[in-house]
Amino acid sequence: MKKVINNPNNVVDELLQGMVLAHPDHIRRLEGFEVLVRKNSPIEGKVALVSGGGSGHEPSHGGFVGTGMLDGAVAGAVFTSPTPDQVYEAVKAVAGPKGVLLIVKNYTGDIMNFEMAKEMAEADDIKVDYVVVNDDVAVENSTWTTGRRGIAGTVLVHKITGAKAETGAELPEVKRVAEKVIANVRSMGLALTPCIVPAAGKPNFTLAENEMEVGMGIHGEPGTHREALKTADEMVDHLVGKILEDLDYTGGEVVVLVNGLASTPLMELYIVNKRVHEILASKGIKVYKSLVGEFMTSLEMAGFSVTLLKLDEELKELFDAPADTPAFKSL
Amino acid sequence: MKKVINNPNNVVDELLQGMVLAHPDHIRRLEGFEVLVRKNSPIEGKVALVSGGGSGHEPSHGGFVGTGMLDGAVAGAVFTSPTPDQVYEAVKAVAGPKGVLLIVKNYTGDIMNFEMAKEMAEADDIKVDYVVVNDDVAVENSTWTTGRRGIAGTVLVHKITGAKAETGAELPEVKRVAEKVIANVRSMGLALTPCIVPAAGKPNFTLAENEMEVGMGIHGEPGTHREALKTADEMVDHLVGKILEDLDYTGGEVVVLVNGLASTPLMELYIVNKRVHEILASKGIKVYKSLVGEFMTSLEMAGFSVTLLKLDEELKELFDAPADTPAFKSL
Repeated sequence: MKKVINNPNNVVDELLQGMVLAHPDHIRRLEGFEVLVRKNSPIEGKVALVSGGGSGHEPSHGGFVGTGMLDGAVAGAVFTSPTPDQVYEAVKAVAGPKGVLLIVKNYTGDIMNFEMAKEMAEADDIKVDYVVVNDDVAVENSTWTTGRRGIAGTVLVHKITGAKAETGAELPEVKRVAEKVIANVRSMGLALTPCIVPAAGKPNFTLAENEMEVGMGIHGEPGTHREALKTADEMVDHLVGKILEDLDYTGGEVVVLVNGLASTPLMELYIVNKRVHEILASKGIKVYKSLVGEFMTSLEMAGFSVTLLKLDEELKELFDAPADTPAFKSL
Repeated sequence: MKKVINNPNNVVDELLQGMVLAHPDHIRRLEGFEVLVRKNSPIEGKVALVSGGGSGHEPSHGGFVGTGMLDGAVAGAVFTSPTPDQVYEAVKAVAGPKGVLLIVKNYTGDIMNFEMAKEMAEADDIKVDYVVVNDDVAVENSTWTTGRRGIAGTVLVHKITGAKAETGAELPEVKRVAEKVIANVRSMGLALTPCIVPAAGKPNFTLAENEMEVGMGIHGEPGTHREALKTADEMVDHLVGKILEDLDYTGGEVVVLVNGLASTPLMELYIVNKRVHEILASKGIKVYKSLVGEFMTSLEMAGFSVTLLKLDEELKELFDAPADTPAFKSL
C-alpha cells in the first residue's frame, strides 16, 4: 500500500484539518464533527444545501462548500456513509428559516442515514427535504445500492441547485431544480486499477495487467463486464453510447463532465474530452460547457467517467451563475 | 501500460485538441503547431508571457493560459523540450510592442531551444527576454539539468509575473518581478511510483513495493536517495526541512503549494498540507495562502512536492490579483 498517510484510521480527520488550513476563507469545521460548513454559516435568506457521503471521493463533497454551491458537507469514514448524528449536526449548523435541502447519492446507507438526520432535524422544527442522485447508467442495483448509483453527476446537482438556492428561492423551488438536474443527468465510468481503503490495507478486487472493468462504481462495485483494454476512443464510444441510449439528448445542449477517478492524468482526460465532443458533434448535440478534471474520485483508482447533463434555459443560466468554492470557481 | 490513449505518438496533439474543446472561451491553438495562446492574442498594452516544456505535466503549462497568467504555452513531446520553431511561433502570435517574457524551467534542452527562439524573434524586431526557474532544492545538476531543476514553483512564477504583466508594466519591470519570485521560491518532492512515457511503453525506472525516491525530478530524474516508505508527516518533515535549510524564511509570510504528481489523491495532499502548516507554525512562519492540487504533474507518477514562496507586499498583492485560466481561477 503506497499511500501518503499517517495512521490509516485518522485519514478523514487529517484530511479535514488539511482542508480547513488550505481554505480558511471558505470553510470551517464543526468542532468535534467530520463536517465542513461555509465559514459564515448559516447564510441568511437562503435554503441551505447539505451533501456528503463516504470519504475517498475528494474534492467531493467538502471541496464544493462555498458561495453558489453547498452550505455543508459531511464526511463519513472512507467509502462509508456518514452517521445520522453527523448529518444532523451539519443541518443544524447551516439551517435558517428557509430550511435545508439534502443532496444524497443513491447508496442504501446514505439514504437511511440522511433520512434519519432529516427526522432528527424536523423534531427541532427545522424544515428539511432531500433529493437522491442516481446518474450512473451502468447497472441497476449494485453492492450497496437499490436502483442506480449516484456518481459524478452529483457535482452538477451541487452547482445548479446551489445557484438556485443563492437566489433566495423557497425550499420546494430549490428542490424542483435539483430534481430537474437529476432527471437530466447521466454518467458512466470505467476503471483500470483498483484502490485500497487505508484501513483495509489491500485492494478490494484485482484487475489483470491488460484488463479494465466497464461500468465500475466509485467504490469498486462491479460494473457491466471486464474486458481487455481498448483505445481511449473505443472506451469513450462505449460509455457515451450507453448514456445516449438511456436519455434522449437529440437536438439538445449539454454540459459535459469528464471526471478522473484519481490516477488517470489530466492529459488522458483531455483525450477523452476530445472524443466526447466528436461523438456529440456527429449526433447534432451541442456542447454548452465542458468540465474536465477530478470532481468525484475513488481514492487512487485509475479510470474516468463521462457525465452529460441535458440543459434548458433555466439550467444554463444557473450553471453559469458565479461559484466560489475550494474546488470549483466560476467567474 | 494502463493508459487511456489512442496512438502513443498522438497524445500531445489529442491533448491539445481536447483542451481547446474544453476551454474555447480561454484558449485557441495555433494551427499546425503545438501551441496554445489566449483566445484574443495578442492582448494590447501588455508584455506577453510565454512558457512551455515537455508534455506530461498537465495542467502545466497550457492550463495556465488566460487572464492574469500566461499568453502562450508551447507543448513539446512527452518529457521533451519544445523545438525552437514552436516557441518562435508562440512568441510571434502573442507579441505586442511591449515584448515577450519567456518563462523557462531549468532543463538544458529547454534553455537551448527557448534561447534560439528568442534570437529568431529578435531578428523580427520583437523584444524578448527570459527567466529561468530553478526551484527544486533536491539536487545540483541532474540528468537533463545544469544547476537546479525547475518544478512546481514555476506555476507561482506564472501567477505573479502574469499579474504584473496585466498592469501594463514594461518588460524590464515584469522580468524583475519574475526574478524576485524565482529568488524566493523553493520546492522539493518525492515519488512513490514511476511513470511510463507513452511512446516508450515501459517505466524508465522501478521502485520496490515499500520504497520511495526522495528528491526525484518531474521526469523521473534521480533524487537524493531511496528509502522505505515513511509516514506522511515524516515525508513532509524531510522535504520542508530541506527547503527551510536552503532559504531563510524566518519571520516571513509564505504561499504554500502542495502539488500532486498525478496519482496521489487529493485526500493525501491535504494530509500533507496539514503537516506543512504545522511545521511552519512551529517556526513562526505565517502562511498567507495555500494551494493544494495538481499543478505540475508527471504523467501518472504517484508522489508530491511542496513549494514555499517567501512573500513581500508586492508579491502578496500580485498573488491576490484576479486570474482566469482553465486550471487556475482567482476571484
